[in-house]
Amino acid sequence: MSTRSPANPILRPQDVPPSRPGFEVIGALNAAAAQLGDETLLLVRVVERPINPDPDVFIAPVFDPDTGDLVLKRFPKGAPGYNFADPRAIGTPEGDYLSGISHLRLARSRDGVHFEVAAAPALFPADEYETFGVEDPRVTRIGEDFYVTYVAVSRLGIVTRLARTRDFRSFERLGVIFPPDNKDVVLFPEKIGGKYFALHRPSTSGLGRPEIWLAESPDLLDWGHHRHLIGTRSGTWEAARLGAGAPPIKTSRGWLEIYHGADQNNHYFLGTLLLDLEEPGRVLARSEQPILGPEAEYERLGFFGNVVFTCGALLDGDRVRVYYGAADTCMALVEFSLDELI
Amino acid sequence: MSTRSPANPILRPQDVPPSRPGFEVIGALNAAAAQLGDETLLLVRVVERPINPDPDVFIAPVFDPDTGDLVLKRFPKGAPGYNFADPRAIGTPEGDYLSGISHLRLARSRDGVHFEVAAAPALFPADEYETFGVEDPRVTRIGEDFYVTYVAVSRLGIVTRLARTRDFRSFERLGVIFPPDNKDVVLFPEKIGGKYFALHRPSTSGLGRPEIWLAESPDLLDWGHHRHLIGTRSGTWEAARLGAGAPPIKTSRGWLEIYHGADQNNHYFLGTLLLDLEEPGRVLARSEQPILGPEAEYERLGFFGNVVFTCGALLDGDRVRVYYGAADTCMALVEFSLDELI
Repeated sequence: MSTRSPANPILRPQDVPPSRPGFEVIGALNAAAAQLGDETLLLVRVVERPINPDPDVFIAPVFDPDTGDLVLKRFPKGAPGYNFADPRAIGTPEGDYLSGISHLRLARSRDGVHFEVAAAPALFPADEYETFGVEDPRVTRIGEDFYVTYVAVSRLGIVTRLARTRDFRSFERLGVIFPPDNKDVVLFPEKIGGKYFALHRPSTSGLGRPEIWLAESPDLLDWGHHRHLIGTRSGTWEAARLGAGAPPIKTSRGWLEIYHGADQNNHYFLGTLLLDLEEPGRVLARSEQPILGPEAEYERLGFFGNVVFTCGALLDGDRVRVYYGAADTCMALVEFSLDELI
Repeated sequence: MSTRSPANPILRPQDVPPSRPGFEVIGALNAAAAQLGDETLLLVRVVERPINPDPDVFIAPVFDPDTGDLVLKRFPKGAPGYNFADPRAIGTPEGDYLSGISHLRLARSRDGVHFEVAAAPALFPADEYETFGVEDPRVTRIGEDFYVTYVAVSRLGIVTRLARTRDFRSFERLGVIFPPDNKDVVLFPEKIGGKYFALHRPSTSGLGRPEIWLAESPDLLDWGHHRHLIGTRSGTWEAARLGAGAPPIKTSRGWLEIYHGADQNNHYFLGTLLLDLEEPGRVLARSEQPILGPEAEYERLGFFGNVVFTCGALLDGDRVRVYYGAADTCMALVEFSLDELI
């Protein structure tokens, strides 16, 4: 049975200091999780925006690669040719702008429940691929290194990039590993049959749906042999879209993948997938029912309500601690027994 | 100066026998080009559809991986929940279907102008990634092998796959090299600094535009280090979308890439790009004006009018023979001097 932490939500926007004066944090969500020594680390997606006292102006914070700093683009509301219907974004003749910008922030904990948030960002937008922010990281430990796959958003599209760290203090950026539009990339923690593997989620523009694919790599940098792994199921909790969630966990029965699905109402749920240990393209089992859905108030109400979305889960004996973003606003924790997930 | 062949169009739908009884060929377009011995080869995209005497029914030919053959899906026109506005496709609750299905057909010539078309397909849809057809091939010779990048279309999305041949009789399929949605992939004909390179054209779902990217590979199968290369230019012939055309041609001044751009009216043009020989991510020059636009009647009128679109160009002394699809219907040939293109 799932057990939500009584401390939920374990991280809220008000627990995170903004990266600069004049900004407010509106989201602390979709964190990657890692164990380093006796600490649990979360690499949290922090969404912030300029404090805006003027309701007649939409302000979009954008990273400017030329100056290396944020610029604030101001759009008077009601301007012809602009679309202000969605509070999260503004439609303009040159493309959409977002109302907030995300970076990644480290949080550390001794007990896995109570976290101390770093004062400064760990990964902040840094170039033309990240002008609208960096989002939804996943961390996989391979040997002594931690590899971070994260989403970079810009006018060039939505791509997944790779970074490497040993200490979560300094990060080495290793480039774009999946071209637009691609997100929800998780790396398997070891080579299988001499190759690295990843799950990824390309977006299709018309014919298909956002579903989970598998890819192989000799070096974690170059990816090929793309294969479609699982698709949406109409009429269910995973009818509209799918994406990998936590990096796969190795068990004696197979690779355990906790993924997300969204239904036709854009409510997000978590489900499980069991993949063959030696041939991860073979699906051994898939949950018919979600293992978690938006029920608690912090999951139902928020910036984008009715969402549970994981980017990291840690195996702890026979328990699995699943860290997840709730309502696109905060972080929460739920525990499962490993047996019941498999 | 460009010189259109007086024999244009050099291949028309009526020059190509359908792959099976009861079908008609409606397009012979977007051919890859290669020189093999003293022959010029075109690997032509052939679009065919079932002959349909009933105007009240829309018939979609679909490759069925289970039976290994085509099935005809019939939709009574006017059915509620279906969209028949576009003659090329039908919108259904389960997604779009196409009115035609493409395969690749070989055509051979001694003079580069008059072609003999093979009676049977060279590459026909073969699995679940190709249920709606295989399209728009490019051929690059690397050593003794010819590598074919081609677009595979299915409910899983629009992907680019790789195949290898030495004789254009048998083809070895090597898998999906670029996940959905990605097309207009051209391979450079040799390694540069120890890596293979490709241009590709990912589709972005909202924030960006379809533009040209560069990728690297150790083995032609796995691709990474994706970088945005060139973008659209508003108010010009390449305002709406871009894509690589012919595989890059090595010249003393740089890699010559002939690419396509489309304007806001979906008229397609050809332009040129010169890339640094040792660092193909460095753009040395880019044509301000198109080198070819839709002017001749066979370029203006057809299945989709006002299109010139190349998938292959051959260097012949100081002349470049550019083979191109015209109006999404037929094949044509235009010659340029190499000097003027550079």
